[in-house]
Amino acid sequence: MSVSAAGGFSASGIRCGLRRDAPDLAIVRSLTQASGAAMFTANRMQAAPLVVSREHLELAEPQAVVVNSGVANAATGIRGELDARATAAEAARLLGLAAEEVVVLSTGVIGKRLPLDKILPGLRVAADALSCDGGGAAARAILTTDTCTKQAVVRGEGYTVGGMAKGSGMIHPNLATMLAVVTTDYPLEPGEPIAFLGPAVEQSFNAISIDGECSTNDAVLLLANGSAGITRSTATDEAFAAALRAVCADLGAQIVADGEGTTFVAEISVSGAASDAEAKAIARRIATSPLVKTALFGRDANWGRILAAAGSAPRNGGYAQLDPGRVTLDLAGVRVVDAGALQDAEPELSGSSCTIALDLGLGDGAAGYLTSDLSYDYVRINAEYRS
Amino acid sequence: MSVSAAGGFSASGIRCGLRRDAPDLAIVRSLTQASGAAMFTANRMQAAPLVVSREHLELAEPQAVVVNSGVANAATGIRGELDARATAAEAARLLGLAAEEVVVLSTGVIGKRLPLDKILPGLRVAADALSCDGGGAAARAILTTDTCTKQAVVRGEGYTVGGMAKGSGMIHPNLATMLAVVTTDYPLEPGEPIAFLGPAVEQSFNAISIDGECSTNDAVLLLANGSAGITRSTATDEAFAAALRAVCADLGAQIVADGEGTTFVAEISVSGAASDAEAKAIARRIATSPLVKTALFGRDANWGRILAAAGSAPRNGGYAQLDPGRVTLDLAGVRVVDAGALQDAEPELSGSSCTIALDLGLGDGAAGYLTSDLSYDYVRINAEYRS
Repeated sequence: MSVSAAGGFSASGIRCGLRRDAPDLAIVRSLTQASGAAMFTANRMQAAPLVVSREHLELAEPQAVVVNSGVANAATGIRGELDARATAAEAARLLGLAAEEVVVLSTGVIGKRLPLDKILPGLRVAADALSCDGGGAAARAILTTDTCTKQAVVRGEGYTVGGMAKGSGMIHPNLATMLAVVTTDYPLEPGEPIAFLGPAVEQSFNAISIDGECSTNDAVLLLANGSAGITRSTATDEAFAAALRAVCADLGAQIVADGEGTTFVAEISVSGAASDAEAKAIARRIATSPLVKTALFGRDANWGRILAAAGSAPRNGGYAQLDPGRVTLDLAGVRVVDAGALQDAEPELSGSSCTIALDLGLGDGAAGYLTSDLSYDYVRINAEYRS
Repeated sequence: MSVSAAGGFSASGIRCGLRRDAPDLAIVRSLTQASGAAMFTANRMQAAPLVVSREHLELAEPQAVVVNSGVANAATGIRGELDARATAAEAARLLGLAAEEVVVLSTGVIGKRLPLDKILPGLRVAADALSCDGGGAAARAILTTDTCTKQAVVRGEGYTVGGMAKGSGMIHPNLATMLAVVTTDYPLEPGEPIAFLGPAVEQSFNAISIDGECSTNDAVLLLANGSAGITRSTATDEAFAAALRAVCADLGAQIVADGEGTTFVAEISVSGAASDAEAKAIARRIATSPLVKTALFGRDANWGRILAAAGSAPRNGGYAQLDPGRVTLDLAGVRVVDAGALQDAEPELSGSSCTIALDLGLGDGAAGYLTSDLSYDYVRINAEYRS
């Protein structure tokens, strides 16, 4: 049951009326003292709940998180911050916590006030509904244009890592890209979670793109309550790190596969770059190119667009290093360019995914990225979103 | 008459068989000794004709330009360079010029060799067709997915500036964004044209976006042959600079209005930024946001997306400065946020364009940008381009 799979966590998801005919309010809480960490969007237009949650995380270890969908409470000014504070305070009262032990996250329409007359009564219903089986309901309540829930569970030796996420639009790196809550009963000391969360996020949520957008709201939260009661060692820490990475990667892949209008997924790998950061800049540029993404939608193996995108990857105010005479490109397993030379081969795109492997022949830098195609449905969904 | 409007220029456009049922080869030449300058794409995957033309421009003042559509001759390796050189050499032979006095430009499909068996015979036909009335034919021959020609003429006191351009997809700053050829009979010394072309391009072609793509091929070329025979002064130089800027801005606006799938245009102005460069970074980010552009297509005054985009404008490895508490946003003339405070107003998008005016309240930096919406047709055109 995803976010409530680890020992000592309960969750709930209910409908309080923010969305039409869909659940829209979730709570996840630890039943024993937890430590935690969060990573937030890098967007300068930080949504109000993020401003408040960031402050709370500086004051205390998080014990619970409230997530609402339907209204993002972003671009709402100082009133939006007061609304987020009121939400945290009411949840804290109901759960017997201090306000600063509650993280609040919101997703939905930007520029609209949070309807407290619906949220505050809803919190009581959600608090009453908290259960160790509530992970699925919570995962449903955080969705917006998603067509299915995103949940993942990995069992370690004596402990569990579970999580839920929402995605669909505005999926792009620098975090800021979706909501995810991951819980574990693996024991972590206060201050430790971020050391595990950071690398896991970099290789999962920060390596996916649907539309290149960087939202005002999105966040990844890790809660660890240690209720598995196991003894740690370097080996178990490494295993836990791998389990956490696996849960994040699984949730990230689910987000791309369910991206707004997604009909096709491309797994991009860039190697031979001057550095890992250069490789990532190029992989990201390919992953966000409208011309590459419309070609994927048309199942057109238009590899020229991949190289054109690779050649214009922003990096340090200029472009990432690339020498046209050294690039080697394999599309869908077929080599189309070898060390700069045209191979006169015609790859075919079929099924629901393909690989794009670009070697720059410059160094040892490498990076991976998952992306989706750009379809009519992406346009339809986003042209009609508010109506 | 566009590119052949200024005195002492001839032009032609013919069909040599690169495109189905459409003209695809143009020549523009100066009949008297000209000076010139070009600005090329910043894309690292420079197309072969650009590599060759850059070299030619270092060796000599340009006297003629050959433009083909249908095949971009990009990502074609060393063979592509030889094809571009052969094109320039044959044109030079036919026109009685040195090869290095010929600039070659290509636009079309990436990753395909230039069919010399069509281009070389075509050049003879095009050379024979050169005429002072040939500007319109040349403007037609450089188009790809454009639905109409882009031409502009401005008459100064005793001289003329005229130009043609092609756009449609891959329109985005850092030049690299379309093809444009501008001619004038205003007298400029060798080495001078770039001083006039640079600022004109920065405020026109580098301030428009259709899909945020930066192509491998695109270029702006200015040829000045002085055949107007007027006497220069600081005042005439300033008037000429304004005329050149007006031609470039007119061509740029025509490109956006005819962008692939464009149904709506937004005129973005950002003010109050920490610097002009910060303002431009934010204006560009708004102009390239898929969520903003799909909202424009849906005529949805979803101003929250504008702020979300503004908050994530890449700049020096981070994001451009923005304080949510200071931003003021007017959409379609209606104030929706005033110094960070929600105004509870509902702008309406109708007709074929709107204004987006964002003031950051931080400094004196300002910039403008023109952008188009993201429509079903953009997806259709680019999903089907090669088929």
